[in-house]
Formats: sequence, structure tokens, C-alpha cells
Amino acid sequence: MEKLSIIKIGGNIIEDETQLLQFLKLFAAMDNPKILVHGGGKKASEISKKLGIEPKMHKGRRITDETALDVALMVYGGLANKKIVARLQSLGCNALGMSGADGNTIKAHKRPVKEMDYGFAGDVDGINADLITNLLHLGISPIFCALTHDQEGQLLNTNADTIASELAVGLSDDFEVTLYYCFEMNGVLRDVSDKGSVIKKIDSTSYQKLMSDGIISNGMLPKLHNCFHALQHGVNEVRIGNLALFEKGNPNYTTLTL
Amino acid sequence: MEKLSIIKIGGNIIEDETQLLQFLKLFAAMDNPKILVHGGGKKASEISKKLGIEPKMHKGRRITDETALDVALMVYGGLANKKIVARLQSLGCNALGMSGADGNTIKAHKRPVKEMDYGFAGDVDGINADLITNLLHLGISPIFCALTHDQEGQLLNTNADTIASELAVGLSDDFEVTLYYCFEMNGVLRDVSDKGSVIKKIDSTSYQKLMSDGIISNGMLPKLHNCFHALQHGVNEVRIGNLALFEKGNPNYTTLTL
Repeated sequence: MEKLSIIKIGGNIIEDETQLLQFLKLFAAMDNPKILVHGGGKKASEISKKLGIEPKMHKGRRITDETALDVALMVYGGLANKKIVARLQSLGCNALGMSGADGNTIKAHKRPVKEMDYGFAGDVDGINADLITNLLHLGISPIFCALTHDQEGQLLNTNADTIASELAVGLSDDFEVTLYYCFEMNGVLRDVSDKGSVIKKIDSTSYQKLMSDGIISNGMLPKLHNCFHALQHGVNEVRIGNLALFEKGNPNYTTLTL
Repeated sequence: MEKLSIIKIGGNIIEDETQLLQFLKLFAAMDNPKILVHGGGKKASEISKKLGIEPKMHKGRRITDETALDVALMVYGGLANKKIVARLQSLGCNALGMSGADGNTIKAHKRPVKEMDYGFAGDVDGINADLITNLLHLGISPIFCALTHDQEGQLLNTNADTIASELAVGLSDDFEVTLYYCFEMNGVLRDVSDKGSVIKKIDSTSYQKLMSDGIISNGMLPKLHNCFHALQHGVNEVRIGNLALFEKGNPNYTTLTL
């Protein structure tokens, strides 16, 4: 089966021009086919403040009201996405920026109101694998921002980690997918205070043990849950780490398999 | 030869939610294949002001410095483009939003500095007809915002009328193209103060006469120049008017042919 790389980059890479350029060079140099998923970093909060909009939060999660969604459309869908695309084009990568509304590629629904109304936050229902596969076969690298839609005209702010894993699952019928989560840390750490304590390999058995031993910290739990969800639904392999993920001969990151 | 419609909508339609929705319904109902080109209207100036950026102008033309380009990326590439795409999806039209950087579809260069430096303003060099044709054949309607790139990583603010005519010319080898300029007026008027004085048909001969008789006003000159440039380079027909352009059996607009 043809191989496909899906890479999610964290906000801290988007924010740092030097790191972003370094990453984009590594991405452009990777073999096709490949997909990038990005958030918008702190720029959204910065633009919000300048526009006089106070970010609304509940238990550490952002509440997306109409003005916050407009900022997300501007910063994720416009500023960040188009700059990444133009830079990749200069590096010889035929990038095409997308939200989940474009080509109806990522269908979602507004998160149901239970305790809280998170506003225009989307939970993914599924992806349009056919169009994405067609684009990949045309030599295009889709660059997804963290926006989806409900097919009724409403755009929705959606977690970029989730978008990456849903894309990976949805494309795993047609491709042998490796999913990369690229962020500021070297990988999953045995000891959060020791950057060198990267756990090189995690499988379903050691994942259960790491959780029961309390070694996986709070912040990492939903990320690993996403990873194993993807693996259980057809994704071949997940890798977690920093830019070293893409440097050849450097095995210093975490690889997850079933 | 297969028919293709390319429609440019003016700022006043983007600004008015009711008119925009009315237009999008008409666009969605048109037969495929079709392409939409839009600007961003006054929203860019509104966002600029809120961000404390004064729009810079020279002889009525906008000067695009780095902050003004960022606003164009946010408003044209993000806010306006994604909202149009999501709305079209809800109307059953498989829209995909693009700048000229996406898929390297519209190549341009920064306008050379002569008397004035217009900043990051782009003059179009050519289009990537192959990718656009492939997308059209996949049933996609590309929705272009008024942004291009120089293939060296720089995005450029570009006149939407020009983008529409360059797309029309570039695709006329593969399609029988009709180019629509949809704006607030009924068409080209014989008497600017009389909305009913639409000139129904203009060809190369009557165009020369209308110019020498001084009937075509200043604002309309560059628009008609664009139209005849397109006709001389393979475009089948150009139509100028308001939403009546798309209502069946309503011939109240201007049709231009060679």
C-alpha cells in the first residue's frame, strides 16, 4: 500500500519564525504524499486583544463565540495558513491550504450543550477521503487549519490533534499512514523534568502499564488517547516528538504501535 | 468545447449579507464547471482601523505594506473566503477556497517601483491551468480571493478584476469561457445618471466609438480594458451587470464580444 505522512505541528512551532521555517524545509523535503495540520498559536489571542475581544475560557478550554470564530477564521484560515502555503511553494512543495469546509473535506457538528456551551466548537463526524486522495495523487500537499464545518453553512473551531487523527483514520483504507505529532518536547517522557527520558516505544500493553503507574501526565493523556484511537482504527504508526522526528538517523522520539 | 463560467463579485455584494446570500444561491444553482473570484470589501478597512492601522493610499490606490498585507490575508483569505465556502457547501456547491499561492495556481511578481512603491501589490504572470482544470473535473468550484504569490514565499495583494480575467484567459484553451463581472450597476450605462440606459451589446467597433465619444466613464475604462484584453486572448464572452446576470430570461445587462 502507498505510504502517507500526516503531520500535526503545535502552536509553539507556528509562533517561532525560525522553527517554523526549519520545520517547513523538513516537510518540503519529505517524500510525497503528505498532509500538514496546524493550529494558529498565540497570534489569535494577540489579534483578539487588539480588536478588543477578551478570550473566553472555561476550565482551560476556549469558548468560541461568534467574534472568537471570526478571529479563528482570520488567523488560522487566513494569516497562518496562507503564509505556510506560500513558504512551502517557495521550497518546491505544491501546498494547498484548506479548512474542513473546503471541498467538504471535514464534516463536523457543533459540540452539544451539556454543562457548558463551548460555542462554535466542532466535533468531527468524518472526512471526505476521495477528494483528499485525488489531491494527493495530483501531487498536492493539503495544509489543513483547525476549522471544520457542519454542512449547513456554519464553520467550527476544531482541535488540531483531533483533525490530524481523523484524517489519519479516514485515509488508512487507501494508504499506510504514519501520523506525526510534532511539538516542543522530545517525545513522551518517563520523567517530565528530564528531557532525556524519552520513552522510545509504546504499544497497547505498555500504554496500559504507563497509565496505571501514573507515568503519563495529565497533559499527555488526551494526546495518547487520540494516538491509540487512530492506531485501533487502521493507522499504521504514530510518532511523537520535536523536529528530530524528521531528521534521518535520529531515533530520539516516541513511536507508538498497537 | 466544455463551457466554463468565471464570476467576479464586487465588494458591495460581499458587504451586504442579504445580497451575498442571494448571489451565492444563484451561483450554486448554475451548471458546473464554475469559478468565483471575490475581494473583501470594506471589512479590511474596518479591521485595519480596529487594529490601529491607517490604510495608506496613493491616487486612490491602496498601498500594501506588511501590516496591510496581513489584514488582506486575514480578511480576504480567511474571513470572507471561508464564510463563502461554508455557505456554498450548505447550498450543495462543492466549493474550495484558494489564493493564488494554493496549488501555485496564480503566479505574480511584486509591481515594480517606478514613481511609487505600491508595496506587496502583485501583477499576474500566469496561471496553473492544469490544476484548476483537474479540480473542475473533480466537481470542485474554486473560490479565489484576491491574493497571489511570487513563488519565492511572498504573498501579494492583487486586483480581483485582473485575477478573474487572467483565469478566464488561462483556461480558454480548455474551455469555452464566459466571464461575468457582477457589481452594483445594471451594466455599462450610456448615461451614468440613468440606471435604465444599459448598453446591451458592445463589440470591438462600438467599444472604440464609445471611448472616442467619451461615453465610457473613467471608472469603467480599466474594467472594459480588462474585458477586451480577455476577449482578444480567447475568452468567448464577457457579461457586466448586477445579480440580474444570473436570472434566466432577464437580458438586462451588457454583453461584450469581439
